[in-house]
Amino acid sequence: MAKLNLTLGEVRDLVGEGVIFGHADFVCRSIVRLDHAGPSDLSFVKGEKYFAAAEASRAGALVVPQALGGTQAHQLVLSDPHAGLARLLDWVAERQRGKATGIDPRATVAESASIGEGVAIGAGAVICEEAVVGDRAVIDANVFVGCRSVIGDDAVLHPNAVIREDVTVGQRTIVHAGAVIGSDGYSFVSDEHGHRRVPQVGGVVLGDDVEVGALATIDRATLDETVIGRGTKIGDMVHVGHNCRVGEDVLLLPFTAISGSVEVGDRAIFAGRSGSSDNLKIGAGARIGACSVAFKDIAAGETVWGNPARPKMEAMRIQVLLGELAEMRRELRELRADRKERKQG
Amino acid sequence: MAKLNLTLGEVRDLVGEGVIFGHADFVCRSIVRLDHAGPSDLSFVKGEKYFAAAEASRAGALVVPQALGGTQAHQLVLSDPHAGLARLLDWVAERQRGKATGIDPRATVAESASIGEGVAIGAGAVICEEAVVGDRAVIDANVFVGCRSVIGDDAVLHPNAVIREDVTVGQRTIVHAGAVIGSDGYSFVSDEHGHRRVPQVGGVVLGDDVEVGALATIDRATLDETVIGRGTKIGDMVHVGHNCRVGEDVLLLPFTAISGSVEVGDRAIFAGRSGSSDNLKIGAGARIGACSVAFKDIAAGETVWGNPARPKMEAMRIQVLLGELAEMRRELRELRADRKERKQG
Amino acid sequence: MAKLNLTLGEVRDLVGEGVIFGHADFVCRSIVRLDHAGPSDLSFVKGEKYFAAAEASRAGALVVPQALGGTQAHQLVLSDPHAGLARLLDWVAERQRGKATGIDPRATVAESASIGEGVAIGAGAVICEEAVVGDRAVIDANVFVGCRSVIGDDAVLHPNAVIREDVTVGQRTIVHAGAVIGSDGYSFVSDEHGHRRVPQVGGVVLGDDVEVGALATIDRATLDETVIGRGTKIGDMVHVGHNCRVGEDVLLLPFTAISGSVEVGDRAIFAGRSGSSDNLKIGAGARIGACSVAFKDIAAGETVWGNPARPKMEAMRIQVLLGELAEMRRELRELRADRKERKQG
Repeated sequence: MAKLNLTLGEVRDLVGEGVIFGHADFVCRSIVRLDHAGPSDLSFVKGEKYFAAAEASRAGALVVPQALGGTQAHQLVLSDPHAGLARLLDWVAERQRGKATGIDPRATVAESASIGEGVAIGAGAVICEEAVVGDRAVIDANVFVGCRSVIGDDAVLHPNAVIREDVTVGQRTIVHAGAVIGSDGYSFVSDEHGHRRVPQVGGVVLGDDVEVGALATIDRATLDETVIGRGTKIGDMVHVGHNCRVGEDVLLLPFTAISGSVEVGDRAIFAGRSGSSDNLKIGAGARIGACSVAFKDIAAGETVWGNPARPKMEAMRIQVLLGELAEMRRELRELRADRKERKQG
Repeated sequence: MAKLNLTLGEVRDLVGEGVIFGHADFVCRSIVRLDHAGPSDLSFVKGEKYFAAAEASRAGALVVPQALGGTQAHQLVLSDPHAGLARLLDWVAERQRGKATGIDPRATVAESASIGEGVAIGAGAVICEEAVVGDRAVIDANVFVGCRSVIGDDAVLHPNAVIREDVTVGQRTIVHAGAVIGSDGYSFVSDEHGHRRVPQVGGVVLGDDVEVGALATIDRATLDETVIGRGTKIGDMVHVGHNCRVGEDVLLLPFTAISGSVEVGDRAIFAGRSGSSDNLKIGAGARIGACSVAFKDIAAGETVWGNPARPKMEAMRIQVLLGELAEMRRELRELRADRKERKQG
Repeated sequence: MAKLNLTLGEVRDLVGEGVIFGHADFVCRSIVRLDHAGPSDLSFVKGEKYFAAAEASRAGALVVPQALGGTQAHQLVLSDPHAGLARLLDWVAERQRGKATGIDPRATVAESASIGEGVAIGAGAVICEEAVVGDRAVIDANVFVGCRSVIGDDAVLHPNAVIREDVTVGQRTIVHAGAVIGSDGYSFVSDEHGHRRVPQVGGVVLGDDVEVGALATIDRATLDETVIGRGTKIGDMVHVGHNCRVGEDVLLLPFTAISGSVEVGDRAIFAGRSGSSDNLKIGAGARIGACSVAFKDIAAGETVWGNPARPKMEAMRIQVLLGELAEMRRELRELRADRKERKQG
C-alpha cells in the first residue's frame, strides 16, 4: 500500500547496506506485508520465523536476513532487516507527509511570540503571547499554543493538539492529534457547601524525543511542573495526572491512566489499559501488566499484574486457582458430608 | 423536549402508517418520554411493559402498538412503534441540524483537492492536497482532512474531527466530534539507547455506513490499512490499534480498547469498557462482556466475560464462588481442627 | 515555579488575614512546594504533618497554621492555610491566564447568535445560529458552539472544546480543552440487515458551577436532556452516556465511564477509572471505588469496590482471601489425602 517506485538497487542505497540476489533494477512499486504482496511489491522478512511465509508469498522482491532458497523473488540480504525497514519507512513517511513550511496566513501568531527559522504553522493554528516556537518546528492546523509555552526545535504538533500556557515541549518531541497538554488537574477542596477548585498554576515539561499519542491528556502541576522525561513514549488516550514525574525512556501504552503525584522511574513500562493510583512510586524498569493497576508502590524491576496489581507469578497462580474454585467447592462439600456421616456413625 | 408542532395526523403521514383513535388534528407540541410528558406532548409506548407507565402518563397523545384502555390520550396505533419512532426522530434530527451547504470562506481547501457537489465545509476546516470530498458530504467546523484522504458521498465529519493523510471514509459514514482517524500507532523498536519509532506509512479504511464516536482513535497501519468494515458502529472514546481488521456490522461500545493487529469477525460485539490484547482473532458473532478483556483468541459465536475473559458461564460461577470464599475458608479451618483433634485423640 | 514577586505583606493583604513573624517586606519571588523551594521562594505548610518538611525546607518564607520554631524562614500565620493557598493561587491563575476580551476577527459568529457583554471569543471559534453567549463568558480558540446552545454568564470554554446544538452550559461552568458535549449517544436498533441509528434529538444541560475535564464526552439525550447537576466536577476523559441524570456536587474522577440512562444521586463519588453499567440508580453519597464498576443499583451512602463492584468490606476480604487461595488448595489436598488413607486403612 505504501508507494515506493524504487528499484531494488535504490532501496539498498537508501538503507545503506546489503547484497542483492537477483536484479538490482527490479522496480518495487509498493512495500506490502508478506501475505498481501504481489509480483510488483517489495516485502520484508524480519527473521527465521517468517521464512515459511516468505516462500508462500507472491512478493516480487524480499528484504531478508539471509539468502532464501524456496522463492523466485529478487532478494536484498541485510544484516539487520529491522533497522533497514525502519530506515526505508522513514523515507516513505517523509515523502508522504509533504513539506509545508512557512506560516499560513490563516494562522494567528501573537506579536510577542518568538518564531524560529524554517517553521511550518498551519491554517487555524493559534500561537499566544510570549510563546516560543523553535527552529523547524511543525505546528499543524488548528493547534493551540498557550501563553509563554515553549516548543522545541524540530518538534511536531499534529492537528487540533492543545498546548495550554506555561508548557515546555522538548526538541524533536511529537504531540499527536487532539492531545491536550497542561489542562487543570482534578483538584478540589470540599466542604458542606460543595467542591471548590484548587487553582493549578504550575506547568508541564515534556523532555526531548518524547512522543504523546492522539487524544492523550497530561495535566499541569499545582505549583511546579508535571514532568515527562526524555525519550518517553506515550500512547493514544493516555492520562497522566497533575504533579506526576515520569522518568526517561518510559513506555506508557494506549489507554494507560496514571493518577496525580505518581513518580515513575526510568524505563518502566505500563502495558495497555494499565494504570496507577495516586501518590505512588513506580520503580525504574518496573512493569505493570496489561489491564493491571498499581495500588501501592512497585519496586524497581518488579513485574506486577492484575487489578489490584500483585507480583506477576502470584497473580497468574490466582488466575489458575480461580479456574479450580468450583472443584474446590465440591471437594469441601464432600469432606464435610464425610465428616458428618462419621460423627453420626 | 424535542419540538414537533405537528398534528397527530401529520405524525401518521410522516411515519407512513397507523390508525388514529381520537382527534387527528390534535397538535403535538413536543415529543417527550412517558414520565415527563404533559397534556400537549406526544409520547411513545414501545411495548407491553410500558402499558402501566402509559396509563400513568400525562401525555396528550401516545403512539402505541395497540389501542389502550386506561388513558384519555389521543392514540396513534402503529404495527411497529420502534420503527415509527426512528422515522419521526429522523425527521426531527434533520430539522435540528439545519442545512448548511457550500464552502465557508474561512475554510482552507487545497487547490489540488477535489470537492464534490452539494458539499458543506465549515469555517476553519482544512482540506489538504489531493484530498477527495464526495457529493453531499458534510465537513464541519475546524475538521482536518489530510493529504490524499478520500471522504465518501454523504459522509458527515463533526466539528474538530481529524482525518490524517491516506485515510478513506466510506459513503454515509459518520465521524463524531474530535475523533482522530489515522494517527501513528504505538510501535517502537527498543535497544540500550532507548526507543525508536517505527514509521507508520499505511492508512485507514472506514467502510460505508460506519459510525465512529466522539474522541475515538483509530490508528493507521504500518504498511497497508487498518480496516473497519461496512456498517460497524464504534462508540465514544474507543481505541482501535494499528493493523486491526474489524469486520462488518460489528459493535464496539464506548471505551472499548482493541490493541494492534487484532482481527474481529463480522457482527462481533464488544460491550462497554471491554477490549482485546494485541494480535488476537475474535470470531464472527463473538461477544465480549462489559469491562471484559480478551487475552486469547475467542471462537466465533462465543460469549466471554471477565478480565481476563473466560467463557461467560465459568466467569459468572467464579463471581458467585468468590462470594462464598470466606465461608470456604471457615469450613476448611473447621475440618482441619477436626482432624487435628482426631489425630491427637 | 509560579511567579509571585510579592512581599509577604502583600501576600497577607491578598489572602485577607494573617500575622507575620519576620519581615513583611521580604520579597517572595515564586510559590514552590516545600522540598523544591529556595531562599527567595514562598512555600505552604498545610498542617502538622508537614512541620518536619517545613523545618528541612530552604524556603525563604512560609505560610503556616501556627508559628514554627525550627526554621529561619519569615512566617505568615493563617488560621486556614488551605483557604489562603486557594485564594493566592486564584490570584496567580488569573494573572497567568491573561485578559483577552472582545471577539477575535477570526472567530465566526452567526448573525442570529446573541452575544453578552464583556465576552472573549478566540480566533477560529465558531458560534452557530441562535446560540446565546452570556456576559463575560470566555470562549477560547477553535471552540465550536452549535445551534441554539446557551452558554451561561462567566462560563469558560477552553480551546477546541465542542458544544453541539441544543446544549445548555451553566453560569461559571468550565469546559476544558477538547471536551465534547452533546454528541449522539450509542443507540442503534439491530436486525438481520444490520444496525440502524436511533436519532438523538434531545440535548444536554450542564448546571451552574460544573467543571468538565479535558477530552471528556457527555452525550445528548434521545428525547429530553442528559443532565449534570450544579457543582458537579468531572475529570479528564470521563464519559457520561445519553439520558444520564447526574445530581449536584457529584465527583466523577478522571477516566470514569457511566453508560446510558444512569441516575446518580447528589454528592456521589466515582473514583478514578470507575464506572457504571447502564440503566442503574446510584444513590446519593454513594462511593464507587477506584477501578470499580457498578453492575447493579447502589444504595445511598453505600461504598462499593471491585469489578463487578461489591460492598467494600466484602471486596477487600475477597482480595485477602485470593492471596490465601494457594494455601487453601494445599490444605484441601492434604485433607483429601488424609481421608483416602483413613478409608483405605
